[in-house]
Amino acid sequence: MTQADLSALLDREQANTELFELLRIPSVSADPARKGDMTRAAEWLRSKLESLGFTARVDATPGHPLVYAERLHAPGKPTVLIYGHYDVQPEAPLEEWHTPPFEPTVRDGRIYARGSTDDKGQAFAHLKGVELLLSQGELPVNVKFLLEGEEEIGSASIGDYLTAHKDELKADVILISDGSRFAPDVPTITYGVRGLSYVEIHVQGANRDLHSGSYGGAAPNPINALCEIIAGLKDDQGRVTIPGFYDGIEPLTDEERQMWAALPHSDEEFAASIGVPELPGEEGYTTLERLWGRPTLDVNGIWGGYQGEGSKTVIAAKAGAKVSMRLVPGQDPERITRLIQEYVPTIAPKGVKAEVLSHHGGQPVKFDTGSVWVQGANRALKRVYGRDAAFARTGGSIPIVADFDRILQTPVLFVDFGLNEDAPHSPNESFAVADYHNGILTSAYLLQELGAAGTGAEG
Amino acid sequence: MTQADLSALLDREQANTELFELLRIPSVSADPARKGDMTRAAEWLRSKLESLGFTARVDATPGHPLVYAERLHAPGKPTVLIYGHYDVQPEAPLEEWHTPPFEPTVRDGRIYARGSTDDKGQAFAHLKGVELLLSQGELPVNVKFLLEGEEEIGSASIGDYLTAHKDELKADVILISDGSRFAPDVPTITYGVRGLSYVEIHVQGANRDLHSGSYGGAAPNPINALCEIIAGLKDDQGRVTIPGFYDGIEPLTDEERQMWAALPHSDEEFAASIGVPELPGEEGYTTLERLWGRPTLDVNGIWGGYQGEGSKTVIAAKAGAKVSMRLVPGQDPERITRLIQEYVPTIAPKGVKAEVLSHHGGQPVKFDTGSVWVQGANRALKRVYGRDAAFARTGGSIPIVADFDRILQTPVLFVDFGLNEDAPHSPNESFAVADYHNGILTSAYLLQELGAAGTGAEG
Repeated sequence: MTQADLSALLDREQANTELFELLRIPSVSADPARKGDMTRAAEWLRSKLESLGFTARVDATPGHPLVYAERLHAPGKPTVLIYGHYDVQPEAPLEEWHTPPFEPTVRDGRIYARGSTDDKGQAFAHLKGVELLLSQGELPVNVKFLLEGEEEIGSASIGDYLTAHKDELKADVILISDGSRFAPDVPTITYGVRGLSYVEIHVQGANRDLHSGSYGGAAPNPINALCEIIAGLKDDQGRVTIPGFYDGIEPLTDEERQMWAALPHSDEEFAASIGVPELPGEEGYTTLERLWGRPTLDVNGIWGGYQGEGSKTVIAAKAGAKVSMRLVPGQDPERITRLIQEYVPTIAPKGVKAEVLSHHGGQPVKFDTGSVWVQGANRALKRVYGRDAAFARTGGSIPIVADFDRILQTPVLFVDFGLNEDAPHSPNESFAVADYHNGILTSAYLLQELGAAGTGAEG
Repeated sequence: MTQADLSALLDREQANTELFELLRIPSVSADPARKGDMTRAAEWLRSKLESLGFTARVDATPGHPLVYAERLHAPGKPTVLIYGHYDVQPEAPLEEWHTPPFEPTVRDGRIYARGSTDDKGQAFAHLKGVELLLSQGELPVNVKFLLEGEEEIGSASIGDYLTAHKDELKADVILISDGSRFAPDVPTITYGVRGLSYVEIHVQGANRDLHSGSYGGAAPNPINALCEIIAGLKDDQGRVTIPGFYDGIEPLTDEERQMWAALPHSDEEFAASIGVPELPGEEGYTTLERLWGRPTLDVNGIWGGYQGEGSKTVIAAKAGAKVSMRLVPGQDPERITRLIQEYVPTIAPKGVKAEVLSHHGGQPVKFDTGSVWVQGANRALKRVYGRDAAFARTGGSIPIVADFDRILQTPVLFVDFGLNEDAPHSPNESFAVADYHNGILTSAYLLQELGAAGTGAEG
């Protein structure tokens, strides 16, 4: 198989133009008003894949549609299933964007747009990588694409889809680029993701809003109560106080702790990069250990009472908060959700009613770093970046990964092209143009390496 | 002076029709978009007062205008200054109103509309009381009206106004109806109001919203931090923990505690009336003592992060809350505001910046229950309700009262017509039609009694 330098063959202008078209579609899966845009994005990807000679289709689900495509012209060779998602986070708060979230703009070598890095940019790099290889001949492996539209809202439909299409989706390895490299100069292979339990706490006080003068001192205040409840979910060492929360967690191995400690990381620079004086968190663990190997509890949103201009002397009838817990191997999302649902009512102050509603969850996962797939990926990355990859975990959660593990029993290979500084989920999300182009090259070299790595299960 | 039964002479239909006109004007002082409606309401009152033969005018202020009117045709008789406010609370949350807040609707003997009881209905009752007396001849006292438009946002302008118009506003007693009677069958004279310190807490975390997966465990979370701060402002006995908060408070007298203990009150009924299982609050005090004689700290509003539909895995950059503290004699609003401004940063969790902004305040006040004015008011109330008045304090705050005390050095007489169940500041605020009409009669009899009560300072 040719190992020609593909870099010279990549039409970077054209690659940008095509990605921008995709980024202009506001495919916000959490927003019911964007349902039509979701379908538009899915159809756009299907037709692009067909233009690459793939058999492609858009499959409906109870939620947003999935795009499936395959090109199986490498008999005896491995089959690679490339997963990505075309849905994006809500753009709110819109006023904080310097340029419109759905009008991609290049500034200082970065593409600014919602979804630029998470995950349209990274997923589309694989389509362009495939296209680059096809310009040189047939693909060295069999390739399948599965692009979903519900990743940002919990991937509710894909589990059933995987079960229903188990045989069609059969593959030797699943390739995912939906996260961040460790550092700008550091190619990264990610071998673990945290799980997630996302819930909503509702606190009810009186049967109506009350005058804080006429009732203050006697009426329960659901906002004060909600704050007490949330404050009560952590102790002063930053540990979660929910009984049983830490039960069964696989301790970090010395090998991992040493490997992570050896990575180029500075707490000072990390703190400076987000503009904070220090990095709070669970005591007894380094920052990387807290980010990759330890669970968290973060409030993602809170509301109650009067939020308008000026002042309103009211005791609200109710208050609420969205709370997410990142989980690590050994923790089960459903169990953790049950634990917080049982615990919150027991710490609710008198006079109010508190309940916890479950939004969604995702299993934590870890993979073997010694596989032929990981080694092949490392060689491909070395060709693009000129150095060995760092082996990291990510603090993020990709619920789908647990489903791949459980339903398809297929190993997952995480090769990320983005960076944390891309600010996914934040206003002014961006993706470095160079990272996008390196992603395309990495994808192409990686498929070559995987083709050389072994005989396929379908061979 | 005639002591004719004025009840038979009151045109109740007409009284309702006129009040409804005033209630239809959405004079929300906190909403900059309603500035025009504020002026409309003020002009409406001016022209009504002129129709009663008053010299009336609308005076501009840096904020919303004040309506001043006088009719001084009782030489040698006392001068009564009647204070009220024509501004109302914001109508939010609008969706909880059963009928439009600015379209007065009578159901089950109640007038439903924002401002119906607080304070348009109660203030307007005095205009109608005056009109009723005038239908019988000249007024038995000299009457001045001062109707402001900033009561619901802290009465920022009236202090300077009182100073500038000190002589013009000279009076023997100031009459205010802007609160609630103790119970439906209990006429009430209120001799004390709580003060107020209203602040806003702002917590800043990172310089942008962050992905809760990529940063959770290391980045400070301003919402969790805000909850810790708010929870830290009270101990488990319901006492405020701000150092110095309780310093200088005048203890409740045994006489007061006995007087209040003798009033018809049931914690069970009070709790049931607002739909809560129990009444939390500062330990060691009865409910009435906590409502009238003890300070509070209530969060009136809180916000931060994602409040929309579905889930967003974000760590917000900032969060905030509106907090009001009701104060009692011995506490100074400016000092209390300074204390919380100093204290909050000291209890902010590491990694975040917390600051407290001051909205407005009001002095707590208490008046002598033995004055000729109080006794005259009691006689007037007895004529309408057939029983002696209860002597109560109110948990609410009327900042203006402190200004009357300090600038005009004139005693204030609180004779309220409303009830707590009117739900001022809440959706579906209402005012019982009978209470409105009794207010008109009480006002008329009261002016007669005050005329008989003494020779005026201007006599």
